[in-house]
Amino acid sequence: MAPGKKGILERLNAGEVVIGDGGFVFALEKRGYVKAGPWTPEAAHTHPESVRQLHREFLRAGANVMQTFTFYASDDKLENRGNQLGFTGAQINEAACDLAREVANEGDGLVAGGVCQTPSYLSCKSETEVKAIFKKQLDVFVKKDVDFLIAEYFEHVEEAEWAVQTLKETGKPVAASMCIGPDGDMHGVTPGDCAVRLVKAGAEIVGINCHFDPMTCVKTVKMMKDAVEKAGLKAHYMVQPLAFHTPDCSCQGFIDLPEFPFGLEPRILTRWDMHQYAREAYNVGIRFIGGCCGFEPYHIRAVAEELATERGCLPAASEKHGLWGAGLEMHTKPWVRARARRDYWEGLKPASGRPLCPSMASPDGWGVTKGHADLMQQKEATTQEQLKPLFEKAKTH
Amino acid sequence: MAPGKKGILERLNAGEVVIGDGGFVFALEKRGYVKAGPWTPEAAHTHPESVRQLHREFLRAGANVMQTFTFYASDDKLENRGNQLGFTGAQINEAACDLAREVANEGDGLVAGGVCQTPSYLSCKSETEVKAIFKKQLDVFVKKDVDFLIAEYFEHVEEAEWAVQTLKETGKPVAASMCIGPDGDMHGVTPGDCAVRLVKAGAEIVGINCHFDPMTCVKTVKMMKDAVEKAGLKAHYMVQPLAFHTPDCSCQGFIDLPEFPFGLEPRILTRWDMHQYAREAYNVGIRFIGGCCGFEPYHIRAVAEELATERGCLPAASEKHGLWGAGLEMHTKPWVRARARRDYWEGLKPASGRPLCPSMASPDGWGVTKGHADLMQQKEATTQEQLKPLFEKAKTH
Amino acid sequence: MAPGKKGILERLNAGEVVIGDGGFVFALEKRGYVKAGPWTPEAAHTHPESVRQLHREFLRAGANVMQTFTFYASDDKLENRGNQLGFTGAQINEAACDLAREVANEGDGLVAGGVCQTPSYLSCKSETEVKAIFKKQLDVFVKKDVDFLIAEYFEHVEEAEWAVQTLKETGKPVAASMCIGPDGDMHGVTPGDCAVRLVKAGAEIVGINCHFDPMTCVKTVKMMKDAVEKAGLKAHYMVQPLAFHTPDCSCQGFIDLPEFPFGLEPRILTRWDMHQYAREAYNVGIRFIGGCCGFEPYHIRAVAEELATERGCLPAASEKHGLWGAGLEMHTKPWVRARARRDYWEGLKPASGRPLCPSMASPDGWGVTKGHADLMQQKEATTQEQLKPLFEKAKTH
Amino acid sequence: MAPGKKGILERLNAGEVVIGDGGFVFALEKRGYVKAGPWTPEAAHTHPESVRQLHREFLRAGANVMQTFTFYASDDKLENRGNQLGFTGAQINEAACDLAREVANEGDGLVAGGVCQTPSYLSCKSETEVKAIFKKQLDVFVKKDVDFLIAEYFEHVEEAEWAVQTLKETGKPVAASMCIGPDGDMHGVTPGDCAVRLVKAGAEIVGINCHFDPMTCVKTVKMMKDAVEKAGLKAHYMVQPLAFHTPDCSCQGFIDLPEFPFGLEPRILTRWDMHQYAREAYNVGIRFIGGCCGFEPYHIRAVAEELATERGCLPAASEKHGLWGAGLEMHTKPWVRARARRDYWEGLKPASGRPLCPSMASPDGWGVTKGHADLMQQKEATTQEQLKPLFEKAKTH
Repeated sequence: MAPGKKGILERLNAGEVVIGDGGFVFALEKRGYVKAGPWTPEAAHTHPESVRQLHREFLRAGANVMQTFTFYASDDKLENRGNQLGFTGAQINEAACDLAREVANEGDGLVAGGVCQTPSYLSCKSETEVKAIFKKQLDVFVKKDVDFLIAEYFEHVEEAEWAVQTLKETGKPVAASMCIGPDGDMHGVTPGDCAVRLVKAGAEIVGINCHFDPMTCVKTVKMMKDAVEKAGLKAHYMVQPLAFHTPDCSCQGFIDLPEFPFGLEPRILTRWDMHQYAREAYNVGIRFIGGCCGFEPYHIRAVAEELATERGCLPAASEKHGLWGAGLEMHTKPWVRARARRDYWEGLKPASGRPLCPSMASPDGWGVTKGHADLMQQKEATTQEQLKPLFEKAKTH
Repeated sequence: MAPGKKGILERLNAGEVVIGDGGFVFALEKRGYVKAGPWTPEAAHTHPESVRQLHREFLRAGANVMQTFTFYASDDKLENRGNQLGFTGAQINEAACDLAREVANEGDGLVAGGVCQTPSYLSCKSETEVKAIFKKQLDVFVKKDVDFLIAEYFEHVEEAEWAVQTLKETGKPVAASMCIGPDGDMHGVTPGDCAVRLVKAGAEIVGINCHFDPMTCVKTVKMMKDAVEKAGLKAHYMVQPLAFHTPDCSCQGFIDLPEFPFGLEPRILTRWDMHQYAREAYNVGIRFIGGCCGFEPYHIRAVAEELATERGCLPAASEKHGLWGAGLEMHTKPWVRARARRDYWEGLKPASGRPLCPSMASPDGWGVTKGHADLMQQKEATTQEQLKPLFEKAKTH
Repeated sequence: MAPGKKGILERLNAGEVVIGDGGFVFALEKRGYVKAGPWTPEAAHTHPESVRQLHREFLRAGANVMQTFTFYASDDKLENRGNQLGFTGAQINEAACDLAREVANEGDGLVAGGVCQTPSYLSCKSETEVKAIFKKQLDVFVKKDVDFLIAEYFEHVEEAEWAVQTLKETGKPVAASMCIGPDGDMHGVTPGDCAVRLVKAGAEIVGINCHFDPMTCVKTVKMMKDAVEKAGLKAHYMVQPLAFHTPDCSCQGFIDLPEFPFGLEPRILTRWDMHQYAREAYNVGIRFIGGCCGFEPYHIRAVAEELATERGCLPAASEKHGLWGAGLEMHTKPWVRARARRDYWEGLKPASGRPLCPSMASPDGWGVTKGHADLMQQKEATTQEQLKPLFEKAKTH
Repeated sequence: MAPGKKGILERLNAGEVVIGDGGFVFALEKRGYVKAGPWTPEAAHTHPESVRQLHREFLRAGANVMQTFTFYASDDKLENRGNQLGFTGAQINEAACDLAREVANEGDGLVAGGVCQTPSYLSCKSETEVKAIFKKQLDVFVKKDVDFLIAEYFEHVEEAEWAVQTLKETGKPVAASMCIGPDGDMHGVTPGDCAVRLVKAGAEIVGINCHFDPMTCVKTVKMMKDAVEKAGLKAHYMVQPLAFHTPDCSCQGFIDLPEFPFGLEPRILTRWDMHQYAREAYNVGIRFIGGCCGFEPYHIRAVAEELATERGCLPAASEKHGLWGAGLEMHTKPWVRARARRDYWEGLKPASGRPLCPSMASPDGWGVTKGHADLMQQKEATTQEQLKPLFEKAKTH
């Protein structure tokens, strides 16, 4: 960490708002550097300029956290999907750390090393084996001296606990974030119980990321906060939701929506939706506020602009953005100039331009419900094995 | 031009498909480098890495044309909006040319110098004065030796003619593109008549960009093509539409929609919409196929993938994209794997997740219709003058 | 006609507004007395109370015209659909006349005898044969001394001319109404040309009924009016549209919409839509204003309420309806009382409660377009023959 | 009761399906005989033919129950709304009984005398006073010897209990139906607890009517049934929901939707929605299945057609309706004939033809929630008093 920078816990303990960054895999997929499905993480190594630029845009938009682009970059996941390019996990994870640090040094950024759920757990590997997977990524994070650690995107609280326990061994601050909604994890453990278990496992920050839209995620973190407080424990809270409207999700989130992942455009949140989200998150007491899949730099900027008073500053990118559309005052058409005001954008119900499309979808999932979680886990384990040859084959093309 | 590269006319004369790039002002606005309203062009000079990276992504997505990021970068427009940063038009235009050339050289790209409609014309300046404005940008393009020229985003065919006449003096190939729909230009000149006049003025390529969605633009270019052929003339055709669904536009295009420019998200086209667009454009005989506002790199990649057979190649970025969602074959959930097929995505009617929003909007515009075009032009002229102090004031903050 | 009542032409010549009734086949289908598909007309004979009650409700709602319930009650149509109940056309037509007269006598109503397009014409029968079909119904109308005649629901102007010529022989006033939209009849004859031909054939009133929504029908009648005036002719104008929103119709109207005829509910017009319709129809100079399929008594009442000042009276049924929702002033909930005002209902954009449904549909029709009209006519002729055994079979069940 | 007819409990005890009728106030409002807001009940006395005809249509559609048209016809309600026409409650209630009996005798119908919630209760009158109100209507029902009694449309379980206790004194079977959803009554008493209390008060049949759409009502009755069974009690179950889609209702039901009561058209259920409803109601064990506001005769027919096998018969009105659109086999257009099949209509997602409208609405209610029920009750009591002069005034016009 650069001299004079405050660490994540110092900030949160002081009551500061910490703004997270947005979603790398979705943004880089659209830019041409990540493959949807396997969600390949090699770009940090093969196309560093693309990852560096995205970090920079988030920093410029107000993000205080540069999370290493190491999602699904554990060795077992790389191997599982065929590891087509032949890079080692270490190569990818090290490159990702270097890029995050480079950009963090350009401003008020902290580097967070990130791990997420593993195919090993889904394949019913032992606690020892799963923890060993986390340990490998962790070794890189320690070597590169990241500022803190995030264990995120867990559907099973048990695996999240194992992750937290492993990360805690480094002595660095640990944030733990699950990708669940109000119905709880895939075995039906409530958000409140998940949070309590994660705090007991050692997480200083707990919360939710991905899978659901902002309001659903905020609501779920609120359930976590209430339970942690009721248990007489202390923690900080984080939220990094989707930038998609998903009121029609079932308990497994947006993956089951028919639009996932290539038809989600009509669901993308506007910057004004982000103002609402940021305010709501702040109001329920969350202080680490960022984004996940779908969040582009302008979404993060909107969060920073909404909380400008609380943070005491506007982000750099606001020089290219008047608050509440003020830049439109300079438009040549009078009726467009008339849109340069808050109530216009707050009141707008944006049309889709798609009269042949519905406003909500029926989630897919072949009738899978929470009760079938064990069966599903078993199936996914099998799937992991079955998929291997397919990825191997893909590798040779 | 790099030795061995074919020029734009060589390609079109040989019947090749030429893929254009996407929209810079909208993409860079979301990335934090362009201000909506004045649509500032200074980023090429102040943040070259952001412009370079976007060029690169379009090249990687299959674009053959690197259009200089010089939209609204004429001296009169810079001055008109206050020129807050104090750069000269030459500085901005030169930086933009260098970036386009740098990336073009990384692959099979041509550099196109671009000019567009001017506040001078809207303020009723004389033909001589307006042409002098074009000439200034042109001097940079000649100095930097761009490969061809594009006069685009004209609402008035008369100004477009003046632009073509000026550009023709360089001896470089000239493409002329208007931002009109089937109802014609702001004085009611039909698309067909516009096209004939532009061809007679010297344009080798004519077409449409911006303001309307792909299908409307293709339809309008078809009207141009029919009229040019009927007049016994010859030309090539180009189309660079919005990446937004706008069936509810009135004659002045998406600017009058209530969602412009900060609530257009639900209208964003999917990659599958782009397949349809590319096919339709190809079928009516258009061979220069690109995009304007809203087009992100993955949209251009979809155009390139749809026309892969015709072009004989896939773009580089397709290594991160299976055709028709093939990458999903590697997803762990069986019902997501089941989406790895063309008919799934072609048949999908994506939901908006916004049940409180309508599917279409009533265009704004305070009742302005084509018939009021002269009045409007007068008003906009006044507006240009009236806005000056505002921009001046903005400059001092 | 009751002594002292003014005839249809007297009224129209005096500039009065004449209000038509609503749609019998659709209303009686929902009440259980008409079969959709063959659109059986026997109820006048078998269940007179149902037809009488509907007449009464329209009279009470403000209708000045009691149109005999004789739609598709020509002998060839009865025979063609199997005539399952074995009644003669005369029996049905006479019963229908008696019911219309009975109710007309209860108020300020005129009886209009109605004929419509025939299977004979679609089967390419000769002019003589088709006219003979009309003549049979006409004999009943003369015997029962109806007040005037309406030839309605014609897709082919030629057949409509034949109908008018036949009806004119009675010496009674004749109204002629086609079921076409702005694109004209099934052979592409424009609405204007259709109107001129019908006026020349002897119709005193010309217009449009069925197949399209109110605004489309009004627009089409306006085209008729412009052409008739341009030709130096004189006529009165009528409109009796659907009570369904059909912006997505193709040239053959609502029959091709996927919702026809059993899923049209979400398209039903509100009473407030009817106010707009009545005003628009009045403004373009139409003075015979009524309804067709989908019009219920409260829709006609809304027409009468909108034009209450012009007509100098409110209909009887308005005693059970405050203007613009005034009755709600007596509601117990204050926020419902707040709806008792015109601007609330005029501004309301009613939700469908159907988030899984689109707002527009793609018309069916297996790609049939106007150009294929001859082929279609031929096909329908064949169809008429082919269907006969089916109806015969149905008859025996 | 006609000799040989089985009573309501005999039928239900034998496991038979009993079909209720549809909604009189909404249907007669559209026909011009009831005023929305005060929902006037005088038509039975002033326009008996309109009420008789509607009874007849429901009977013909398959209804086994002719419920007297006595909704909001208690003396306190009549007085409260000004009683503009000056009829006594007895006059109205007697006329309503006679009409129901007349039509019931034309087929397999039972007459049910109906009472509903009173302004007296909302004005905090005592148990004695409220029961006296019920008693007055009851005296008529006893005099006219109705077959059984329905206490319906109660938002407060306490008042419903008082009604049941009063009705039980007659010795006739009593059905009790509340107009609540899954959140329970206006004081937050759960549906299950409501049901148990009503059964203990003496109701042989319990259930839900009005305020919510079919699926919500069925779900709520299911909650009632589960609780009654869990309490070791026995009862029969009834459901008479709205014929409107209302997924966006808050706890007070459709009255708070902005479309109530004059813009509900886009929400009207199709006949195919009714098939789903009838099947679902049957599947959860409900045997008294009917409808409330919005139900037209064809909706009841659809219920009867879905349960034709279970009931062993089709209703009379099915002679004018082929099952699942079979009548369309006789349509002349082949693509309409292709719709004469079950899967077509079951799969149809009907469009609204209203692209400017949303699919869901935000309920009105000025922020009123269940917690404010006491305050609300107090306010409504005041309202009842405040409204009196208004109604008095209306009376004099």
